[in-house]
Amino acid sequence: MFELLATIGKTRRGRLTLPHGVVETPCFMPIATKGAVKTLSSADVESLGASVLLSNTYHLLLRPGMDGMKKLGGLHSLMNWDRPILTDSGGYQVFSLAKLNKTTEDGVTFQSHIDGKRIHLTPELSMQMQQVIGSDIMMQFDDVAAGDSTRERYEEAMERSLRWAARCKKEFSNTQSLNHSTTQSLFAIVQGGTHEDLRQRSLEGLLDIGFDGYAIGGLSVGEKREDAYRIAEFVCDRLPTDKPRYFMGGGMPEEIVHYVSIGVDMFDCVIPTRNARHGTLFVWNQDPSTIDFTLTTNYQLPIPPFYRKLNITAEPSQFDTGPIDPFCDCLTCKTTSRAYLRHLFSVGEMLAMRLATIHNLRFYLRLMEALRASVVE
Amino acid sequence: MFELLATIGKTRRGRLTLPHGVVETPCFMPIATKGAVKTLSSADVESLGASVLLSNTYHLLLRPGMDGMKKLGGLHSLMNWDRPILTDSGGYQVFSLAKLNKTTEDGVTFQSHIDGKRIHLTPELSMQMQQVIGSDIMMQFDDVAAGDSTRERYEEAMERSLRWAARCKKEFSNTQSLNHSTTQSLFAIVQGGTHEDLRQRSLEGLLDIGFDGYAIGGLSVGEKREDAYRIAEFVCDRLPTDKPRYFMGGGMPEEIVHYVSIGVDMFDCVIPTRNARHGTLFVWNQDPSTIDFTLTTNYQLPIPPFYRKLNITAEPSQFDTGPIDPFCDCLTCKTTSRAYLRHLFSVGEMLAMRLATIHNLRFYLRLMEALRASVVE
Repeated sequence: MFELLATIGKTRRGRLTLPHGVVETPCFMPIATKGAVKTLSSADVESLGASVLLSNTYHLLLRPGMDGMKKLGGLHSLMNWDRPILTDSGGYQVFSLAKLNKTTEDGVTFQSHIDGKRIHLTPELSMQMQQVIGSDIMMQFDDVAAGDSTRERYEEAMERSLRWAARCKKEFSNTQSLNHSTTQSLFAIVQGGTHEDLRQRSLEGLLDIGFDGYAIGGLSVGEKREDAYRIAEFVCDRLPTDKPRYFMGGGMPEEIVHYVSIGVDMFDCVIPTRNARHGTLFVWNQDPSTIDFTLTTNYQLPIPPFYRKLNITAEPSQFDTGPIDPFCDCLTCKTTSRAYLRHLFSVGEMLAMRLATIHNLRFYLRLMEALRASVVE
Repeated sequence: MFELLATIGKTRRGRLTLPHGVVETPCFMPIATKGAVKTLSSADVESLGASVLLSNTYHLLLRPGMDGMKKLGGLHSLMNWDRPILTDSGGYQVFSLAKLNKTTEDGVTFQSHIDGKRIHLTPELSMQMQQVIGSDIMMQFDDVAAGDSTRERYEEAMERSLRWAARCKKEFSNTQSLNHSTTQSLFAIVQGGTHEDLRQRSLEGLLDIGFDGYAIGGLSVGEKREDAYRIAEFVCDRLPTDKPRYFMGGGMPEEIVHYVSIGVDMFDCVIPTRNARHGTLFVWNQDPSTIDFTLTTNYQLPIPPFYRKLNITAEPSQFDTGPIDPFCDCLTCKTTSRAYLRHLFSVGEMLAMRLATIHNLRFYLRLMEALRASVVE
């Protein structure tokens, strides 16, 4: 399922072979929270060069629900998207979105943030829902500690996540043996906050159970960037080389570059899409194929910085009839001037968000292309 | 500029040759109020087969404003749209949208509905703004009477609109002689509510001044459909055959069919786009090329009805994995099931509005294609 094609130092160039297709790594997964990347159609996302999407089990469990999704034949069919999908487990969303969530050893009871309906989400239910969704990669259900938790809470959450990982693996094996038509994969999530010893314990426990891939969870939640870098490298250094590694929920382009340099294979992040909807665009400072990524320092942008952020709603773009990004090959840059995009944001046209989303996602996907090319060279 | 290619009864098949291209009539103009058809890019609108857009002088006068539009080089350049554009004059919007509008013989003073800024819009300013926008067809500035006005108010508005039409023509001739690079056209607007004698007086006055085309204004504003049909036919019967006729702001598909049958050439309407954004889709009951439009009755749908309205957000679409409209050739119908479109509306994804807009606009544009084909046969 995972093939390591080349390495330079800790940087890895790999290939994931999944039921719905091949994913070249390092890869970036656009987020289709409710079954669509906000503002984009599946055809749009495909044409941007995305080879895998992420979708959120929590949101799909609320609407269309497990029975609904069953009748609809799964998410690939619903979205008309025939490339791979990774689903998270719902653990992070019941913690961050749901009202009145209450965690016991069995699972999390929460109220839907939509209609207040009470739902009890367990490791088993998360597996079942992800199986109904039909994602290529399922994530284990985990107990998520807040970013500023005490060591005791981190330890509790990590230990419980380990026990839930075992329950997920068991439920996963049961459902997989019932369903011979697809072969889903199951990834575990390494937890433990910024504590090396807790991360070590999490790692060992998960490796004992054995998963198809391993995610680094609980980072990009407000901790210092140097702490995230330290913990991510600590974890990567101890993960098996023959399994894919997924950094959850990060980050800025220079962070992606750094995490790739320490051996991460997969990313997802709301940064490109959320920034786009607020008029902040990522713009190349040079042709991405000419970037020397080895110039990166540990906690900073590479020198010289390879990109900048453009606030398109600000004054200077008002009469700038030039392209948004001369180095970009996206549909938006081919057809839209800075002045027009600014005008669309200024008058509140939805089209503005779509055009900006197309650009920012293409920026991230092209960054991954450049990073992949840099390993082969 | 206008060529009458064929007629059957009162129905006309024509061709408008404008600075930015040829428009086959009868035609439908999608509405790009603020410089974009809501949710769509210019490339989208082009790919739907629209050959001419309508944009609103009032909105563009507020943002980007006259100086802004000048610096931006006009609307074609701003939107990256190289096909014809018709602009309305702002008369209807100062009446319907602006706050505290006050009409004198000189013009209308109003407060912007955006920021409360006070603006004095005159026939001359409307012409100047439309010239800066660079539309292929400019509309005269008119005094708009509410749909339920007294005869006295209709008469006053009609007479003032006549005087303003003369001022528009004069200002238009001045600006056109200053600008040799393009040749804009100027259309007049026949007013007079549902009173034949006022319409007659309006017609005669406007024909005396002489314009490139004539619009039927002040209908589709709440009057009975039979009154609108009666007045539209009264006006069409008295308009010169060698000039294009534009019915402003209407209507439902069966109304379009009827107005075409009495000799209207051009239409614009918010119905397809606004309905789309609320989840109401127009669906063919048969292949549009097989519709016999002569079966139309005066105030009703043709028998059998050639379309129906589908409320995609309603229950029956929930698990309907079939296409939205089997007879439609649009991008949405090619890629999206009813169930997915319903899901997108139900979870509040903007993509839903875009997909529905694409479908409904294609429905209207294809109706025009079918109507044009029916005249040649």
